[in-house]
Amino acid sequence: MAGTKTNAGRFFEDYAVGQTIHHAVPRTVKGGERALYHALYPARHALYSSDQFARSCGMPFSPMDDLITFHIVFGKTVPDVSLNAVANLGYAQGRWLAPVWPGDTLRSVSEVIGVKQNSNGKTGVVYVRTAGYNQDDTKVLEYVRWVMVRKRDINAPAPAEVVPNLPKALSLGQLHIPDDLDFTNYDFTLAGEPHRWGDYEIGEKIDHVDGVTVEEAEHMMATRLWQNTAKVHFDTSARPDGSRLIYGGHVISMARALSFNGLANAQMIVGLNGGAHANPCLSGDTIRAWSEVLDKADTSAPGVGAIRLRLVATKGGDPFKLKGEDGKYLPDVLLDLDYWALMPK
Amino acid sequence: MAGTKTNAGRFFEDYAVGQTIHHAVPRTVKGGERALYHALYPARHALYSSDQFARSCGMPFSPMDDLITFHIVFGKTVPDVSLNAVANLGYAQGRWLAPVWPGDTLRSVSEVIGVKQNSNGKTGVVYVRTAGYNQDDTKVLEYVRWVMVRKRDINAPAPAEVVPNLPKALSLGQLHIPDDLDFTNYDFTLAGEPHRWGDYEIGEKIDHVDGVTVEEAEHMMATRLWQNTAKVHFDTSARPDGSRLIYGGHVISMARALSFNGLANAQMIVGLNGGAHANPCLSGDTIRAWSEVLDKADTSAPGVGAIRLRLVATKGGDPFKLKGEDGKYLPDVLLDLDYWALMPK
Amino acid sequence: MAGTKTNAGRFFEDYAVGQTIHHAVPRTVKGGERALYHALYPARHALYSSDQFARSCGMPFSPMDDLITFHIVFGKTVPDVSLNAVANLGYAQGRWLAPVWPGDTLRSVSEVIGVKQNSNGKTGVVYVRTAGYNQDDTKVLEYVRWVMVRKRDINAPAPAEVVPNLPKALSLGQLHIPDDLDFTNYDFTLAGEPHRWGDYEIGEKIDHVDGVTVEEAEHMMATRLWQNTAKVHFDTSARPDGSRLIYGGHVISMARALSFNGLANAQMIVGLNGGAHANPCLSGDTIRAWSEVLDKADTSAPGVGAIRLRLVATKGGDPFKLKGEDGKYLPDVLLDLDYWALMPK
Repeated sequence: MAGTKTNAGRFFEDYAVGQTIHHAVPRTVKGGERALYHALYPARHALYSSDQFARSCGMPFSPMDDLITFHIVFGKTVPDVSLNAVANLGYAQGRWLAPVWPGDTLRSVSEVIGVKQNSNGKTGVVYVRTAGYNQDDTKVLEYVRWVMVRKRDINAPAPAEVVPNLPKALSLGQLHIPDDLDFTNYDFTLAGEPHRWGDYEIGEKIDHVDGVTVEEAEHMMATRLWQNTAKVHFDTSARPDGSRLIYGGHVISMARALSFNGLANAQMIVGLNGGAHANPCLSGDTIRAWSEVLDKADTSAPGVGAIRLRLVATKGGDPFKLKGEDGKYLPDVLLDLDYWALMPK
Repeated sequence: MAGTKTNAGRFFEDYAVGQTIHHAVPRTVKGGERALYHALYPARHALYSSDQFARSCGMPFSPMDDLITFHIVFGKTVPDVSLNAVANLGYAQGRWLAPVWPGDTLRSVSEVIGVKQNSNGKTGVVYVRTAGYNQDDTKVLEYVRWVMVRKRDINAPAPAEVVPNLPKALSLGQLHIPDDLDFTNYDFTLAGEPHRWGDYEIGEKIDHVDGVTVEEAEHMMATRLWQNTAKVHFDTSARPDGSRLIYGGHVISMARALSFNGLANAQMIVGLNGGAHANPCLSGDTIRAWSEVLDKADTSAPGVGAIRLRLVATKGGDPFKLKGEDGKYLPDVLLDLDYWALMPK
Repeated sequence: MAGTKTNAGRFFEDYAVGQTIHHAVPRTVKGGERALYHALYPARHALYSSDQFARSCGMPFSPMDDLITFHIVFGKTVPDVSLNAVANLGYAQGRWLAPVWPGDTLRSVSEVIGVKQNSNGKTGVVYVRTAGYNQDDTKVLEYVRWVMVRKRDINAPAPAEVVPNLPKALSLGQLHIPDDLDFTNYDFTLAGEPHRWGDYEIGEKIDHVDGVTVEEAEHMMATRLWQNTAKVHFDTSARPDGSRLIYGGHVISMARALSFNGLANAQMIVGLNGGAHANPCLSGDTIRAWSEVLDKADTSAPGVGAIRLRLVATKGGDPFKLKGEDGKYLPDVLLDLDYWALMPK
């Protein structure tokens, strides 16, 4: 009876629209996780670095970095959603709904909202809407993700195709701004840059200049910290070439942290409109980042503006190049992320 | 007078049965150590991941991982016990006697309980019983370990041979179950697997499937965190081949964390019956693990059963292979550990 | 308008004597930072390891390691002081003025106290006095550092030369001893060594014996944790040979931690008289350390003596060798640091 107790992961036939999956292993996050985040990424946004600065913005103390919340909520879904995934295809409709504080305990629940068998009959696309909850059952994050999953039995019949309608971007009304957030006393000197929301123009592009060469030990520590168990990140025998694929979220956090240089005041991530992991990232790659202002919106919170940004991570090449003439991502592009952040006006 | 103030470590002649050694450098452990543990190992047992889950099991919040306690208590003994050790030969009679909570301060005390000179006259075996205490002088852990230690002077006379009688396993009555532990409201969904104590059979073997390729930076960070100072783990000039030997406890923690997949509900380690570090582990090795159910015992704590497990870590080869026809460990076997854990019934 | 929002760093012409620079991104430090420090360095000084031990020395609990304070205060100055630095030339007049406790928030302010253009006309030396403050605006640390900085325009006129008068060492009266520090009940067994202040002689040298081979992942994690953004530490494309230069402070912390073996009771760093990063340190180097007692001074605090130490880090070679016949540091010398520490009498 060896092996019967281990999790082999779900295959395409195991998903059905309407299914709810309660993911395992809730996680209490505290200052230790935050310190590690700041050791693994050059994270410097002041709201997440200083309790004093957070208080000057109306919060009781620094919340956990928004991407810590994302990684933890995401990590819990891996054993149920992406253990047999061939590819992580996209994100949409990501909303941060409440700050996560040191001491909070997070758990994740996913609902299957779409299934579509591929024409090759060997794989299918599964769409899930995942929500993260804290210990008070307050929803702190939700997002849609779709993945390509292997079929267990290629002869299994195709399910009725359901593809959710996913808008390209969140509207301003969908963004949640924490109740007490107030940027009217914002200290631009302590924050590191003088550029206000009003100083950014739609279409503006920013080269974040700095680069970080990534190491195996770092991405594995990060990925484990989020309790993400996908074999390809840890085990050199899991991929034919013996390389360990770096968790896409590691690239997201690295690029976001690098974007401080030029976007130091894009403090709080509140919406994830979409994202693509364009090419694999491996140890030894030097990650760089550039951003493009896609949209802006005013908010009713005191002193707070919203900015929609494209964040692109690369492993080389010229900044501001994204796709080739064939419409495909250039080989040096690692990430193309579309998110909303809050800035002082 | 250079060098006279540094610790050269004890040699075989320096130990005598009945000696008590108060080990240096007490350590306060908090959430930071826990976060690092969860970054260094794919640790997912819910009792140690979520304060909420721990409360549902009768505890005030998550205790420190049992192996954190082991590593810290062990690490303190290294400068006094194993700085000149040739080999760490075995463990026995290990008992976790009280949970360690964030904020507790641990110190270690060892008593020499046996000495036996080897026939070559150059080395001897020293047996110590080590206890870890918290700031209230409550004993939190005790275990016996024996090591082979060099003589300073090969002409020194052999001491009277004392070899302690060490039973192969702890009996149920020797296991300490925390007072308020209660698994009657255990949430198997949040814990990650449905398998109860009653679902495991003596003789059953489980391949834990996953593997982790280990890196120098990781094992050194772990070993330093436990304030273990053995040169061979850190200094490429300490061994003839220039490799850094990975602390055996790193392999124990990695294998235990990997065993989640199939033993997610073997929550709490309460006894260490024995253990052997069968072969050295080096950076680049991919650690895998398998377990065998050696014994089971019912307990009087509500909903709590005890399970005795063999945990084997390998760096390759087929699972479930342990020793060759010559009775020796196969070259790919890293660890053979025998422990008692508590599970929900 | 790409790139106009990123920080290109100051050049030599941008500094003027009397200028005050308020550095960005305050940082709240807690147990997570401490745990990481103890994972990255073999730090074992008992005052910083155990809340109980700290209480026995008159403190409410363990303060943050003195070098954590230094690294955080220093790290904040990098974007403003050393982003275009060619070399970090020296330190002087460093004084720790108040313990930093978990939960404190640190920020840094520098005053330019000297400028001197080099005869080549391409670079100049800038002297700054940097102070670190906590959330109550208490000064916790101050030190002078001077760096060689590139000119933006080599035709820019040289400023009036101002070179501050910097004494070679702090006097006893300049050292700040925390109010309640009391070593009269000092537990030498728990601290790890029996050697008191009175046991050290001026001129005495100590080989700290142990070595640590350093890894890329470790020094980058450390340097990021201090929010030090200098490109050369992270980006293999920043230096012609593709190597990542290890932050000099990483070598300081490694050497200080190694000095435990022989100086376990040199608990608290209170003064930095001077320091030179003699040669670059790279991943793969094995750091060793030796110390020389330069001076001693009695203090009025109960049981507390002050000791002035030279701490030398090397990457090989014989201990106690510092400079060649040409008066230059030998190629294996990494660090020559001169500091005051407090010890039990």
